[in-house]
Amino acid sequence: MEIKILTDVMVRNNAKGEDNRARLREAGVYCVNFTSSPGAGKTTLLTNLIPLVSGAVGVIEGDLYTARDAERLQGLGIPLVQINTEGGCHLNAMQISAAMEDVDLGALDYLFIENVGNLVCPSAFDLGEDIMTLVYSVTEGEDKPMKYSTMFEKADCVLINKCDLAEVCGIDLDALEQEVQTVNPRARIFRIVARDPDTLKPWAEWLHGKRG
Amino acid sequence: MEIKILTDVMVRNNAKGEDNRARLREAGVYCVNFTSSPGAGKTTLLTNLIPLVSGAVGVIEGDLYTARDAERLQGLGIPLVQINTEGGCHLNAMQISAAMEDVDLGALDYLFIENVGNLVCPSAFDLGEDIMTLVYSVTEGEDKPMKYSTMFEKADCVLINKCDLAEVCGIDLDALEQEVQTVNPRARIFRIVARDPDTLKPWAEWLHGKRG
Repeated sequence: MEIKILTDVMVRNNAKGEDNRARLREAGVYCVNFTSSPGAGKTTLLTNLIPLVSGAVGVIEGDLYTARDAERLQGLGIPLVQINTEGGCHLNAMQISAAMEDVDLGALDYLFIENVGNLVCPSAFDLGEDIMTLVYSVTEGEDKPMKYSTMFEKADCVLINKCDLAEVCGIDLDALEQEVQTVNPRARIFRIVARDPDTLKPWAEWLHGKRG
Repeated sequence: MEIKILTDVMVRNNAKGEDNRARLREAGVYCVNFTSSPGAGKTTLLTNLIPLVSGAVGVIEGDLYTARDAERLQGLGIPLVQINTEGGCHLNAMQISAAMEDVDLGALDYLFIENVGNLVCPSAFDLGEDIMTLVYSVTEGEDKPMKYSTMFEKADCVLINKCDLAEVCGIDLDALEQEVQTVNPRARIFRIVARDPDTLKPWAEWLHGKRG
């Protein structure tokens, strides 16, 4: 019975995810779902990335509680919607669909979704994105891609963040990349320091190419 | 209907958690449930903490996939059981009950449970522990206690780890502690560097006192 219900939840989510994707495509909006563990640097990344993106960006922020992440982005002067899951461990497609009502999609080129910080549950919920980008902090260690393989397998792109801390954390970046590629050979990998906008340029260019 | 099922799952879990607690108390085993985000340092902590604990320790390791954490602890020569959740986002009391069958509780003073790395879901599942200890890495930022308040509210103890990285990460440890205390005034807070056993001694002593 649990499995039946869980299946229903997933079927409904995925159908709504497809609806969202169709709405976004019709509006010409390219959608990126950013996932990560808590504190891996998604909001800092968005703060420094968005000024580099050629095109109009809107953001949907997901958090259990507070509007702190949306507040951090307010200085960018872009459309922002905050979703509070009230304890929920992931965003779902129904929440995104409702949040999209508060955004003028016709005025956007990109919609960035910052998911709840959780390296497990968000991997199971299609939101209607074009690509899922996983932000992974070197401070989490070299050994997580295989331990949390579901998330790494779903990622179209892995941004290895806080590379400036690799040495002090004793992290071998080549070994970490190798493990990501073992789990997901199709994922594109970029090394970044979200606090340093210069390190984000290669990924901003790649994203521009993906949108086409 | 979803809510009904979820309630059933929680009721069954919590009943089994109470069963586990009764079995552990009868055997004179003090149980600690360690939670954290991925890569916050739980396994490194256990590696350096266990030799400081006066008493016999057994460990149940929880991971989505792999037995890497259990392998890291093998050198300690203590009873170890690995649970793989196969994608599941938390440990539950039924899994702990089954794992306890593989441990000679009569030979232990402490049972340490290393939960799945996830700052959300494990907070909802009582495993039968005496205390829940949250390991929080400074690299995750100052702003998470309120964003992930469910987990912080449940913690009996918060170990602020990787304090040696606070400065390079721009973290104000006093502000972080203040926010933890705002969310949960009863939580005991210790600053540690899990890689440095000397920093773990105050907590080992506190734990010894808790067990009584």
